[in-house]
Amino acid sequence: MKLTDLRSNFSPSEAGEQMHRLMSQLYPIPRSITGDGIRETFRVIGEEIPLEAHRVPSGTRVFDWEVPREWQIRDAYIRSPDGEKIVDFRDSSLHVVGYSTPVDRRIDLDELRQHIHTVPEHPDWIPFRASYYEDNWGFCMSHNRLASLGPGMYDVRVDSSLEPGYLDYAECHVRGELDEEILISAHACHPALCNDNLSGVVLAVAIARLLLGTEHRFSYRFLFIPSIIGSIVWLSRNEDACRRIRAGLVVSCVGDGGDFRYKRTRRGDTVLDRAAEHVLTNSGHRHSVVDFYPYGYDERNYCSPGFDLPVGSLTRSSHGTFPEYHTSADDLEFVKAAFLGESLSVYATLLEVLENNGVFVNRNPKCEPQLGRRGLYNVTGGLKEGRSQEMAMFWLLNQCDGTHSLLDIAEKSRIPFDVIACAGARLHDAGLLVEGSA
Amino acid sequence: MKLTDLRSNFSPSEAGEQMHRLMSQLYPIPRSITGDGIRETFRVIGEEIPLEAHRVPSGTRVFDWEVPREWQIRDAYIRSPDGEKIVDFRDSSLHVVGYSTPVDRRIDLDELRQHIHTVPEHPDWIPFRASYYEDNWGFCMSHNRLASLGPGMYDVRVDSSLEPGYLDYAECHVRGELDEEILISAHACHPALCNDNLSGVVLAVAIARLLLGTEHRFSYRFLFIPSIIGSIVWLSRNEDACRRIRAGLVVSCVGDGGDFRYKRTRRGDTVLDRAAEHVLTNSGHRHSVVDFYPYGYDERNYCSPGFDLPVGSLTRSSHGTFPEYHTSADDLEFVKAAFLGESLSVYATLLEVLENNGVFVNRNPKCEPQLGRRGLYNVTGGLKEGRSQEMAMFWLLNQCDGTHSLLDIAEKSRIPFDVIACAGARLHDAGLLVEGSA
Amino acid sequence: MKLTDLRSNFSPSEAGEQMHRLMSQLYPIPRSITGDGIRETFRVIGEEIPLEAHRVPSGTRVFDWEVPREWQIRDAYIRSPDGEKIVDFRDSSLHVVGYSTPVDRRIDLDELRQHIHTVPEHPDWIPFRASYYEDNWGFCMSHNRLASLGPGMYDVRVDSSLEPGYLDYAECHVRGELDEEILISAHACHPALCNDNLSGVVLAVAIARLLLGTEHRFSYRFLFIPSIIGSIVWLSRNEDACRRIRAGLVVSCVGDGGDFRYKRTRRGDTVLDRAAEHVLTNSGHRHSVVDFYPYGYDERNYCSPGFDLPVGSLTRSSHGTFPEYHTSADDLEFVKAAFLGESLSVYATLLEVLENNGVFVNRNPKCEPQLGRRGLYNVTGGLKEGRSQEMAMFWLLNQCDGTHSLLDIAEKSRIPFDVIACAGARLHDAGLLVEGSA
Repeated sequence: MKLTDLRSNFSPSEAGEQMHRLMSQLYPIPRSITGDGIRETFRVIGEEIPLEAHRVPSGTRVFDWEVPREWQIRDAYIRSPDGEKIVDFRDSSLHVVGYSTPVDRRIDLDELRQHIHTVPEHPDWIPFRASYYEDNWGFCMSHNRLASLGPGMYDVRVDSSLEPGYLDYAECHVRGELDEEILISAHACHPALCNDNLSGVVLAVAIARLLLGTEHRFSYRFLFIPSIIGSIVWLSRNEDACRRIRAGLVVSCVGDGGDFRYKRTRRGDTVLDRAAEHVLTNSGHRHSVVDFYPYGYDERNYCSPGFDLPVGSLTRSSHGTFPEYHTSADDLEFVKAAFLGESLSVYATLLEVLENNGVFVNRNPKCEPQLGRRGLYNVTGGLKEGRSQEMAMFWLLNQCDGTHSLLDIAEKSRIPFDVIACAGARLHDAGLLVEGSA
Repeated sequence: MKLTDLRSNFSPSEAGEQMHRLMSQLYPIPRSITGDGIRETFRVIGEEIPLEAHRVPSGTRVFDWEVPREWQIRDAYIRSPDGEKIVDFRDSSLHVVGYSTPVDRRIDLDELRQHIHTVPEHPDWIPFRASYYEDNWGFCMSHNRLASLGPGMYDVRVDSSLEPGYLDYAECHVRGELDEEILISAHACHPALCNDNLSGVVLAVAIARLLLGTEHRFSYRFLFIPSIIGSIVWLSRNEDACRRIRAGLVVSCVGDGGDFRYKRTRRGDTVLDRAAEHVLTNSGHRHSVVDFYPYGYDERNYCSPGFDLPVGSLTRSSHGTFPEYHTSADDLEFVKAAFLGESLSVYATLLEVLENNGVFVNRNPKCEPQLGRRGLYNVTGGLKEGRSQEMAMFWLLNQCDGTHSLLDIAEKSRIPFDVIACAGARLHDAGLLVEGSA
Repeated sequence: MKLTDLRSNFSPSEAGEQMHRLMSQLYPIPRSITGDGIRETFRVIGEEIPLEAHRVPSGTRVFDWEVPREWQIRDAYIRSPDGEKIVDFRDSSLHVVGYSTPVDRRIDLDELRQHIHTVPEHPDWIPFRASYYEDNWGFCMSHNRLASLGPGMYDVRVDSSLEPGYLDYAECHVRGELDEEILISAHACHPALCNDNLSGVVLAVAIARLLLGTEHRFSYRFLFIPSIIGSIVWLSRNEDACRRIRAGLVVSCVGDGGDFRYKRTRRGDTVLDRAAEHVLTNSGHRHSVVDFYPYGYDERNYCSPGFDLPVGSLTRSSHGTFPEYHTSADDLEFVKAAFLGESLSVYATLLEVLENNGVFVNRNPKCEPQLGRRGLYNVTGGLKEGRSQEMAMFWLLNQCDGTHSLLDIAEKSRIPFDVIACAGARLHDAGLLVEGSA
């Protein structure tokens, strides 16, 4: 019996380096929830994995919302009274508030200040701000630079447009044996910010590549979308597809060194929820598991009551809780290849649980069968592994009455799922277990 | 949408003073489970709130019991060998054991001692004793006074009568929109004891006054009864009314400075139980919540298996656990106006939860609706209140699928019920929520 | 109403001495899973309690196993190069590996060492080893003795036979009022080892004697079997009888001074499981309660999924966890009469719970009945016992609605079961409770 084995197919450290390189390539592209930046992002991802592009016209009604106008940003700067460019969009896409309306004016410092955002607690960092649903313009800069400005008249210019256009998103579909799907959703609309959420984008790409090279049971759908409005758009166009989703993960903030954190689905007790907790518990990594709450990333929409999909979120540091969040300090240095590699391992382990979690029936339910004469007792040389394989077999023979899945048995026995699954395959191959439920 | 709002209608400190004044008025009346004292008590209460008086003849069969004879006490004293009145009922109604049979004898100190009760650990305090169901007589006095008595013959006199008469109780019924009732039960039979239970009597009066001046949904029934036998009598005559009771509280010991304590209903998981725990948790007051046990006050009868009413008990220090309990030290000093005011606030908060706990359905269950264009996002100036209103709205929109009450959502979100209820009213008024269940 | 009362019928210290004497008698018999040793063991037990002997021919198919050949051991020794008997089966039956095949050879020290087992951490102790299902031979000795051996040729002789014969087991059936049975299972196949498991054998004998002299409700079946294969054989021949089993205990390791330990049934929430936890909690003894796991003694088979019997195991130190386990140090000194007596008390208390756990209905379910006029209030002189009897009565009157057993009420009230059962009998005798369920 063949188990889906993802972890043998990569080295975490090499995969981490590869993810970091892709992130470096994506970093300079000036992204927003619409416009050329996100399109260029999808083009780069499409060089890594097969990607299907979708676009929806501005003004399209999507549930209670409508698709916003497309924002194009060409240039933005502030020129000081003595003619120096003190803020320049060409230095960092963070400098202009997302969805800023066009402006070309000369204003005094007091008025200018009302359009400037800084991070006073970290006076060297530039914050990230956007104003998607209210017409506005503004600049982001370091607090120190703002403090150094003298009185006088400043030239401010935002060369942008807000016109009817399109909202873009992209999907990568990886077929498995089954029609049932696992969803991996990453938002791809933030500008030069690495942990939130280029780390999620490159991890999703790495998982897709892994699955493309491995036999597996479930089909997988990877979504690369603008945050919040993207999931609303996707859900509005894929209500049928939702019925096939057996589990889903919103992937985000997986490149920093923080503890792992799994946020449960709205239902809270799905196989995904139990698998994620089991995997984190056995991972040796520090971690936490929190109940669903209707805030955060796109799980807000996947878990809205009209959908209530079994979608959780597996991250490291959580949105809004690390100082670098939504600032220029969330950069290519903050995210490390090694952390990305670790995160890929944890995701792969979790997907293996979902893939291999079957239900078996013991064909000799009355008393233990004799393992010795089948060569299953003390089968492995190394005492420790042998003992855990034997204990796993005893648990399987006792619990495989058709009502317990392998994950149930792993939880009950406190034996890691992969040890249980491996012992299950051996017992199956020895004819002692058959697939099926009571 | 209009919420029942009790707390805006009083100031805890002023209400506390008012309650304490009423308590002072009731304190000197020599009460027992029958007789003129309890009748006079009802007359005074009747000056505060509309009161319906009931009387049941002695000897009436009430379930396994019968209504006892009526006890009248006119005078009681002990005169020392040198003619001094060393104990005098006119000084304190506690001096004579409740339901003492008449006596007029001259006895020596040894025999006298067998009829004297004291509190040796607090030698200045007078205990409270009664012997309702066994014919007996006795006196209560300070341990110091007893110790000072010399040998000789003492005149003891109890000028009482135990004759067929009536057991009295009183009800105040406050109509709401609904026929369903909330029961508030206070025993009113103890003589000069304040926390147990004049504090309960005056708190019940204050709640009734509050409800009389406020629109509300439930109807309320306030019972002022002699302890234990009173609830047996009331239940025996109101089996039909019991079917309308949705929640009930035995109110007692609410005037001392001890931690709040909620004793659950026999069922343990009624809306009342959850509301009480939620309110205490969010009150900021130290508190405990304990499971039902078949001992204590009249909840013993309300929660007998043949009734099993959803009646709990919300007190501060619990019966029998504070040194002043059933002694002369449970006096007008021990109970403070401020504590009564606090208790009224907690009761009012709890009743608001019961009143406002509805079930709503999100009319836009697929993805979050756009709060911004309805002026519901960042609606309040103060960031903190605004954020908690927004979070409350997100929770409501996510959980209002017709299976969760507002209290369910308050519990799950760990947001205080009143914040949830207020956000629910706003979403209702914006047309985003409708009342009803799935 | 008559309660089954086992504990009044013995003194733990005397019963402990009696058990220890029987253990001393059984200790020298050279037992294995088949053969004359286990037969002689049953003969000795049969002098204490009525015993039914059973035998099953070698080769009989029992589920996935077959009954092994019968092993007879007559003599076994190692003679050193200078002719000294350095190991002699006549000194201790532990010296020869169980089920050793016959051997009569002269071999050098290197070859000899491959057939020698010792306990290096305790160099004076002799281990216990057996090889029931793989043909082999060997000796067990102290590590010190092994270390002292010089080079040269050694004579080794095992005068044994492995021939078709029989597997023996024995049953003692003690009738009660009911056909429903409680199973007590002890393995009786280990040679000179006291805690594992002569302690279990003598405790089972003591319980059987106790029940033979006491009126009781359940019927009891005591099994004395060879470990593992014995329960497989018994189950294969008694599938019908299994349907009558309401609870079962695998008794083992009950003579050492370790904490008590109850291992739950596979179902985990049977009456037995709750009764065992309740009894241990109220015993005052240090103890632990662990979930079922498919390893250990014969509960592995009783709790295999095809049977799933409500069988747990109540021991003191658990198999494999004390250093003396399966060594010569598990001897008549290691097991103390006082510990055996304590264990008997705990078992008797547990069986009393199973025996006396009825369901009653309060005939006066509306309000408390008046205990005073029935002499049930303050009935006992000693205040403490009286109060606990009163509280037990209040709990019973409140909870006896036909849905709660006495054990339910004991758990809920945190009052020991025997106090509840005694109060229940009083209320029953006073006509306030009747047997029966809702």
